[in-house]
Amino acid sequence: MRITNVKITPIAIPDVPLANTKGVHPSVFLRAIIEVETDTGLTGLGEAYGAARTLKGLQTVAPTLEGLDPYNLRDLRQRVETALPEGGGVNAPTALADHKVVDVVYSAFEIALLDIRGKEIDRPLYDLLGGAVRKTIPFGGYLFYKFAKQDLTFGPDIMGEVMTPDALIEQAKEFSAKYGFKSWKLKGGVLHPDLEVETMLKLRETFPTHGLRIDPMGAWSPKTALKVIKDLGGVEGGVLEYLEDPCRGMDAMAELSAQTDMPLATNLVVVEFDEIIEAVKKDAVQIVLSDHHYWRGATGAIHLGEMCRAANLGVSMHSNSHLGISLAAMCHVAAATPNLTYDCDTHYPWSAKEIIKGGRPTFQNGTLQVPEGPGLGVELDHEAVAQLHDLYNTAMVQDRDDTDEMLKYIPDYVRKVPRW
Amino acid sequence: MRITNVKITPIAIPDVPLANTKGVHPSVFLRAIIEVETDTGLTGLGEAYGAARTLKGLQTVAPTLEGLDPYNLRDLRQRVETALPEGGGVNAPTALADHKVVDVVYSAFEIALLDIRGKEIDRPLYDLLGGAVRKTIPFGGYLFYKFAKQDLTFGPDIMGEVMTPDALIEQAKEFSAKYGFKSWKLKGGVLHPDLEVETMLKLRETFPTHGLRIDPMGAWSPKTALKVIKDLGGVEGGVLEYLEDPCRGMDAMAELSAQTDMPLATNLVVVEFDEIIEAVKKDAVQIVLSDHHYWRGATGAIHLGEMCRAANLGVSMHSNSHLGISLAAMCHVAAATPNLTYDCDTHYPWSAKEIIKGGRPTFQNGTLQVPEGPGLGVELDHEAVAQLHDLYNTAMVQDRDDTDEMLKYIPDYVRKVPRW
Repeated sequence: MRITNVKITPIAIPDVPLANTKGVHPSVFLRAIIEVETDTGLTGLGEAYGAARTLKGLQTVAPTLEGLDPYNLRDLRQRVETALPEGGGVNAPTALADHKVVDVVYSAFEIALLDIRGKEIDRPLYDLLGGAVRKTIPFGGYLFYKFAKQDLTFGPDIMGEVMTPDALIEQAKEFSAKYGFKSWKLKGGVLHPDLEVETMLKLRETFPTHGLRIDPMGAWSPKTALKVIKDLGGVEGGVLEYLEDPCRGMDAMAELSAQTDMPLATNLVVVEFDEIIEAVKKDAVQIVLSDHHYWRGATGAIHLGEMCRAANLGVSMHSNSHLGISLAAMCHVAAATPNLTYDCDTHYPWSAKEIIKGGRPTFQNGTLQVPEGPGLGVELDHEAVAQLHDLYNTAMVQDRDDTDEMLKYIPDYVRKVPRW
Repeated sequence: MRITNVKITPIAIPDVPLANTKGVHPSVFLRAIIEVETDTGLTGLGEAYGAARTLKGLQTVAPTLEGLDPYNLRDLRQRVETALPEGGGVNAPTALADHKVVDVVYSAFEIALLDIRGKEIDRPLYDLLGGAVRKTIPFGGYLFYKFAKQDLTFGPDIMGEVMTPDALIEQAKEFSAKYGFKSWKLKGGVLHPDLEVETMLKLRETFPTHGLRIDPMGAWSPKTALKVIKDLGGVEGGVLEYLEDPCRGMDAMAELSAQTDMPLATNLVVVEFDEIIEAVKKDAVQIVLSDHHYWRGATGAIHLGEMCRAANLGVSMHSNSHLGISLAAMCHVAAATPNLTYDCDTHYPWSAKEIIKGGRPTFQNGTLQVPEGPGLGVELDHEAVAQLHDLYNTAMVQDRDDTDEMLKYIPDYVRKVPRW
């Protein structure tokens, strides 16, 4: 079985102005849809970031995959590294999608190859990862402060402005009614820490048994983070199950970690396998967020789980804005990662589109059933892809710049990390 | 596809009195041959240690595997742990085969399941491990001081007494002529360190470009090890490519490591995944020996490779006395471990029997070609198995005790680690 053709389709999906430490989501988010065809008539699917550098990386590698055996992930890796000798010509240090292009491109194709293999043997993808330890995958509700959407050209708003603790509670209530989530993650680092503390305390009051997390994406100094931990009731009997990326950089995380027993999670300071070792040496974090989009695909995410088990670190799951192919892959990885013991993150409720047949999966009590395959267990709705590809061409957005977008809402906005 | 039947056959294979720090090899070594049958008519093979505790563990688990899906390694793990709640009732701290019974039993069945999966899809086993980075697997010659075999009941001697540096060189010459090995590993810790240094220097003189290693299995104090390193020419321009387990225990290895740049390898102080983390924190070793028999099978050995890459540790491969099923599995693991950059150890030349069809594989220039499958790529010679099972019943040996065996050669022998 050999690969005969690879198709990369950039798409744009209407987004809403969700706020974070960097700024705010632009009016569309970008994804790349990957279709890998074999000489046996199978097609494997993948979904990756769609920003310019990733897209260029995918497009550069795609023609070099002809003749690849879908079982040979090491040949895939070599072809990606050969085609992108300078990491895709990209060394920008600010965003995952920038400086990890080789891993991101490898990951996108890896999923497609596993999808092919699953289809060939009529098995769900999780069976290629050692088998499922769970079939029901719990997700947490991802809560955001947000602006009311100004430009409705590409799609409607969801929920209007949410810039106060009380408005955020209403957002959670709406998500709770619609999706049944049993835990909440707040994207923090947006309002003053006192307001975010107030939000978390109100979440606890409204949802007494939900797991609660906050992720200020490095917006706080260790001193501020310590105050937030204290204000949220500390570790024992406090509000948080863990605190995600409170401080910027491995050393600031280690400085904080030395002063608190609060479990610290990260998807920013540990994004490479050798950084797990560094984090353990410095005791900088206690939980690492998995994400098949940059942890070298689904097999890499399984390795991550094994390494975290060895290092006595917890595992949770990270999300970017995504559609149903990624959602299916996330479910398979979650099914096959024994020590992924937290509810997974997902941006999924923040868009309304879908590119898989059957439309948007339905969350039941905050959970999804892992698709039973073959492979990923999803099929492409080509008409839906074509529509979102048209939007990609219409929108004329090739990159994501949350800081630039923020200037539309706060003209004198200056990005600052840490801010408090 | 489900497992319908599991057959465990203990066998004994004639051995020769190879000396080590614990004593000397008994007149037979023990293995267990595993045959796992599915409702689709496939049979997967495995080969494990055959000593009493492992055998009991295998036999205890075997009937609980009925109905297992060969793809579900996590279900396998759970069944093994459930069947052996006390680790097989074994907590002896002295030997791998003793205190890692759960891992050893899991590993033996894992190989058989991968063999089934490879056979089902007509693919070599390495394809289930991410694909081969090499098809030609280099092995090193495993050199031993040895006694002349006294009791020839179960089989002839090989090479007579080898208890001097000069005799060891003759052994290496014979192995070189017969197998073409390009590197040598000496099982040390047997003679006085000065004599073992003399042996290594003569090996270098006789084989100027061969890779050289010595493994005294913890027989030396850090002080003695430092003297040996110095006597062997130090690190740069010296004789050794690495030094294996010179000292006993993680802390002694760390103590030595702090005083030398000589790469230290181990298959004694790092045998669990969490011990990799401990070793990194203590900077105790620089190379970890892989072995699918106890590193949770072939998939576990691949995880080991990934962890070592992340931790900037080298990977080499360990061997116990074994036959062709294990040899095939070792080749598949070596083929699929990118950073296994040293020649693999193997005891294979020290026995003359085989239990796979086609008889004993032939080394060419110290290498073997990885079998091209399906699965392991080997088939069982049931007649040969029956003969060695008869020998198992005849020999009445159920355990390996090198120290007890040593008393036949040196009646006042007392095991002492470290000895020098």
